[in-house]
Amino acid sequence: MIKVGIVGGTGYTGVELLRLLANHPQAKVEVITSRSEEGVSVADMYPNLRGHHDLRFTVPDVETLSGCDVVFFATPHGVAMNMAAELVGKGVRVIDLGADFRIKDLELWSQWYAMEHTQPEMAELAVYGLPEVNREQIKDAQLIACPGCYPTATQLAFLPLLENTLIDHRRLIADCKSGVSGAGRGAKVGMLLCEASESMMAYGVHGHRHLPEIKQGLALAAERPVHLTFVPHLTPMIRGIHSTCYGVLKDPVDHDLQAMFEERYADEPFVDVMPAGSHPQTRSVKGANMCRISVHRPQGDDTVVVLSVIDNLVKGAAGQAVQNMNIMFGFEETAGLNIVGLMP
Amino acid sequence: MIKVGIVGGTGYTGVELLRLLANHPQAKVEVITSRSEEGVSVADMYPNLRGHHDLRFTVPDVETLSGCDVVFFATPHGVAMNMAAELVGKGVRVIDLGADFRIKDLELWSQWYAMEHTQPEMAELAVYGLPEVNREQIKDAQLIACPGCYPTATQLAFLPLLENTLIDHRRLIADCKSGVSGAGRGAKVGMLLCEASESMMAYGVHGHRHLPEIKQGLALAAERPVHLTFVPHLTPMIRGIHSTCYGVLKDPVDHDLQAMFEERYADEPFVDVMPAGSHPQTRSVKGANMCRISVHRPQGDDTVVVLSVIDNLVKGAAGQAVQNMNIMFGFEETAGLNIVGLMP
Amino acid sequence: MIKVGIVGGTGYTGVELLRLLANHPQAKVEVITSRSEEGVSVADMYPNLRGHHDLRFTVPDVETLSGCDVVFFATPHGVAMNMAAELVGKGVRVIDLGADFRIKDLELWSQWYAMEHTQPEMAELAVYGLPEVNREQIKDAQLIACPGCYPTATQLAFLPLLENTLIDHRRLIADCKSGVSGAGRGAKVGMLLCEASESMMAYGVHGHRHLPEIKQGLALAAERPVHLTFVPHLTPMIRGIHSTCYGVLKDPVDHDLQAMFEERYADEPFVDVMPAGSHPQTRSVKGANMCRISVHRPQGDDTVVVLSVIDNLVKGAAGQAVQNMNIMFGFEETAGLNIVGLMP
Amino acid sequence: MIKVGIVGGTGYTGVELLRLLANHPQAKVEVITSRSEEGVSVADMYPNLRGHHDLRFTVPDVETLSGCDVVFFATPHGVAMNMAAELVGKGVRVIDLGADFRIKDLELWSQWYAMEHTQPEMAELAVYGLPEVNREQIKDAQLIACPGCYPTATQLAFLPLLENTLIDHRRLIADCKSGVSGAGRGAKVGMLLCEASESMMAYGVHGHRHLPEIKQGLALAAERPVHLTFVPHLTPMIRGIHSTCYGVLKDPVDHDLQAMFEERYADEPFVDVMPAGSHPQTRSVKGANMCRISVHRPQGDDTVVVLSVIDNLVKGAAGQAVQNMNIMFGFEETAGLNIVGLMP
Repeated sequence: MIKVGIVGGTGYTGVELLRLLANHPQAKVEVITSRSEEGVSVADMYPNLRGHHDLRFTVPDVETLSGCDVVFFATPHGVAMNMAAELVGKGVRVIDLGADFRIKDLELWSQWYAMEHTQPEMAELAVYGLPEVNREQIKDAQLIACPGCYPTATQLAFLPLLENTLIDHRRLIADCKSGVSGAGRGAKVGMLLCEASESMMAYGVHGHRHLPEIKQGLALAAERPVHLTFVPHLTPMIRGIHSTCYGVLKDPVDHDLQAMFEERYADEPFVDVMPAGSHPQTRSVKGANMCRISVHRPQGDDTVVVLSVIDNLVKGAAGQAVQNMNIMFGFEETAGLNIVGLMP
Repeated sequence: MIKVGIVGGTGYTGVELLRLLANHPQAKVEVITSRSEEGVSVADMYPNLRGHHDLRFTVPDVETLSGCDVVFFATPHGVAMNMAAELVGKGVRVIDLGADFRIKDLELWSQWYAMEHTQPEMAELAVYGLPEVNREQIKDAQLIACPGCYPTATQLAFLPLLENTLIDHRRLIADCKSGVSGAGRGAKVGMLLCEASESMMAYGVHGHRHLPEIKQGLALAAERPVHLTFVPHLTPMIRGIHSTCYGVLKDPVDHDLQAMFEERYADEPFVDVMPAGSHPQTRSVKGANMCRISVHRPQGDDTVVVLSVIDNLVKGAAGQAVQNMNIMFGFEETAGLNIVGLMP
Repeated sequence: MIKVGIVGGTGYTGVELLRLLANHPQAKVEVITSRSEEGVSVADMYPNLRGHHDLRFTVPDVETLSGCDVVFFATPHGVAMNMAAELVGKGVRVIDLGADFRIKDLELWSQWYAMEHTQPEMAELAVYGLPEVNREQIKDAQLIACPGCYPTATQLAFLPLLENTLIDHRRLIADCKSGVSGAGRGAKVGMLLCEASESMMAYGVHGHRHLPEIKQGLALAAERPVHLTFVPHLTPMIRGIHSTCYGVLKDPVDHDLQAMFEERYADEPFVDVMPAGSHPQTRSVKGANMCRISVHRPQGDDTVVVLSVIDNLVKGAAGQAVQNMNIMFGFEETAGLNIVGLMP
Repeated sequence: MIKVGIVGGTGYTGVELLRLLANHPQAKVEVITSRSEEGVSVADMYPNLRGHHDLRFTVPDVETLSGCDVVFFATPHGVAMNMAAELVGKGVRVIDLGADFRIKDLELWSQWYAMEHTQPEMAELAVYGLPEVNREQIKDAQLIACPGCYPTATQLAFLPLLENTLIDHRRLIADCKSGVSGAGRGAKVGMLLCEASESMMAYGVHGHRHLPEIKQGLALAAERPVHLTFVPHLTPMIRGIHSTCYGVLKDPVDHDLQAMFEERYADEPFVDVMPAGSHPQTRSVKGANMCRISVHRPQGDDTVVVLSVIDNLVKGAAGQAVQNMNIMFGFEETAGLNIVGLMP
């Protein structure tokens, strides 16, 4: 049984970590921190946890946290940076669900996140925690940068096509739809039920922070810089991301795209290539650590359409973090994650 | 590992049984039947089950089913009746999630369900599967009549008050709100998203089939017939029942209602009496086999208000059925049911 | 064409007033105020108003407002009080959609609203703007206290029964379900889509500010103080109130309740008694200034159940305010309010 | 006052026509037909219409309908075809909200709609009822083919770019999101609240019937055949279409796209070009006959993104049909359509 700490446990990724770890056979949450909720029982804040965790929020403190084997950061960007460095220095393994270590080009990071990066060595040390790409490096990693939700769904959709240099890397489009939980638990007018339900809207068309992260991952797969148009949309539901990805075939001959996708993900426990012709629904992965994908070539034309769905809070955040933990500590990769999506 | 059969697995209680049993340590689904979907893989019908079950629907057949240790019926009323009798005759234990054996007075049953009851011996044999009342009888039962969803939430709310003869048994009101999944997966216009979302309505005010069932249970607790006004409402959400129960104190002196409720359910793994002053949310039990209750006495007056929430598909159906199975077979009562509600 | 001013136009009742008045044949909004949004165009805040209003928010100012024929206050309690007095002093007619003048017993008001009432003369002068009760007084009123949303739906449900002294005034229960817009446009965590959708909960069971208001109205109808248990519930939808009202017949003989309700509201343009046996849906009044009611006596028993639905923002707020304005200024009572509910 | 007939009035476009025409100053619905609901009052089927229409469904009959000045067909494809021809023969003007006359190439029509077209002359005679393109021809039309919902939103988004030959006509993508009402009122499992809410999915990626219609319209604008990838998505809301359209600039120099869009639609009462940088929400047009558009060029790159929203039942169906009627009969184009969207 390893000891787990969680920094910033009051948000949706925090409670989701608690849900997943409540039934993990080899990990136990020992510390959970929140400055604003010090002393509050997690079960008072999240009644679904009543009977599952007997924890109270404490003020974050490196001393206490360094007694853990692994510490998850479920914090806004800029928070994990320095404390992660301290903890790694003390031999604690760190999994950051935030954005601090996702982008390797720190100048680019600073542009998009509008602050200085204070831990360049850590950023270099960090392993980008997408197991479908970096499983080997994750095993020995001291510091994991957990991918963002849009980047997870979108990279898994494009990877097979780019790795096989099948599509034009200069003409990528990702039209993404996210449930409202992606915006977190902060009290923002735009996320009120009365504002966000019964409506659909795009946002951040001029530029969203997940754009450079997705491009970084796709460029590695394509082995060259890519051009991507990324349009996120706010969708009237709690959980789920649907990424609709468009690529243009370089050579519009016959390709067995279905076989290529199935092969690419054959050994992946958490990527499910659906049968040809399928349209995955986000609800099929609600609460589950799973990405379901289907690949289409409408009218046999030269445009490929990949549909990719995840639960933004699970495979797009807390579930992927636990998957990383499992790999790091040599547990079964599926330990604690063998969850059936809640349907209906 | 016991062998499980499910008759009528295409509805919402069927898929929910499959979700819960996918991770049960001591039970494995071997047979699942559906006349209309013969040969179809359950995972094709419910993609959330992909990777969790490798089953196909077969035509219901007593021979095959009698190879099981226990058979669940997730069928409309009238379907389980005769086949259940046959299976019990062959030594198979049966758990009926439908209404065939819930009401002991078969004349009353016939009035409400508009058909003859063909199995009076079975009806007599059947144990009403509310563990919080009948745990001992459930242990040895051959045939379980699983309570309805409204009856589960409403009985658990009223029981402590009636068992202690604290409230007037002639003045009970249950104002209940149910998510749309209570209406099942049938294609009915009224249950379309465009008809049922963004709206609230009562239905069946003149009389709902759960009324005699609730009255039967409350009468047993009160040790006399009760009068109940029961008004169900269709609520724009998928899962959840909120039962708001009103009783009139016989003696409006000071009562420690909170302590009484806590004591009544102290040993119950699946009833959670919330702290005084709480307002349970249905979402706190979404996907979980739990009933959360709080008791109020507004303005110190003589009216007691009990708030009780369940997930209609879990503690109100499939979860309670598995709880009964666990009790019947001597498993840990919580085996396979230690699920944290999905929040948000 | 009368000149209209609106104080506090940024909330949901404010935008709803603008929607309704955009097409009013005899009234034009000339001034709309908001301290926080000074200079902002209303159409920038509420894009549905683009092309319908060419107004900007200004800082509230008695001088400017006194150029109006009527001023609506769509403000939190405590705000309208003093400015309303000043405006009435200058001959401007005032319609307060807030709670400042709803309760005649100012001591009671102070208890529930936790502040002193500074305008006792105004409170005495104010007419409670429920046209179905006070139409005559409204005609000449200088100051209208627009009823709350729960009080509108609940009083209209109980009035015929209490006016005819048919039910026991000591045993009234109102189990009310409200859409989330009732909580306003403030950024509160509990009203986020991720917190309030897919869930049902009661709140304020210990006491809600609409309780004394409803009791005041019912007491006037019953000509004696009444006892009421009032339990509001937060329902996962934007608009709508469903009030389920329970009364106990004093004399359980045969009553033609349907005829009594139809007669009571025969001349009311905005109360629709549904055919016997109906279950009104809140969506049937979405966006419309209408209260639909049906009356039931389940199983012929002594409990009467009245179902009453309104759109909380229309008949429960802005629409009722415009209805009052129409009566005050001698317009057709339905002017600008002949709106068909949006269905689906 | 012209006399209006509606064939097929039980679906969502039918009830929406009734809502809009209830307040039309120059048109009155005299006949409404439905084979299945003969004799039923429209207000019994749609309680929002109580007090607004006193109509009953009758069996469709050319004799009766020919007494009308204009007849709307709100029927599935294949139904309007022959009866429309008969009515036009009798001098009645016909507005078909279905698909029978939308596509000029009848061979193509037959491929997509899997039936023969029996009225080639009528198809030739029919005017495609997109006023922003065909206003002049609509004035004298005997037969209008009302555009589909996706085609309306998508054509209005692409028109300015294609008419100015600014984008590559071989690289068009329309990623469209529709509310569930687009699927109509038929009782289909996939449209149940429990199936369609809290989920997002694409459908018909292999080919949707609106594809050839959109391509036809865009080809006319571009004056050459176009290539379009069209992916519709089912979105968990009742009303609304959000069309996210992608085009590639032929010449990636500086273009004042904002000015171009504003100019193109300057005189259009029902197209609203939003300020630069805007993200239109579907809810801003809920219930209103309006298309709101914004145009973006993310990161100054060569991809143009146009966001276009309509209410699929209004500007995408019944509202556009009434707009056509207004033009045909020389009424104010906005008569009966000056509706403010319902927000929140």
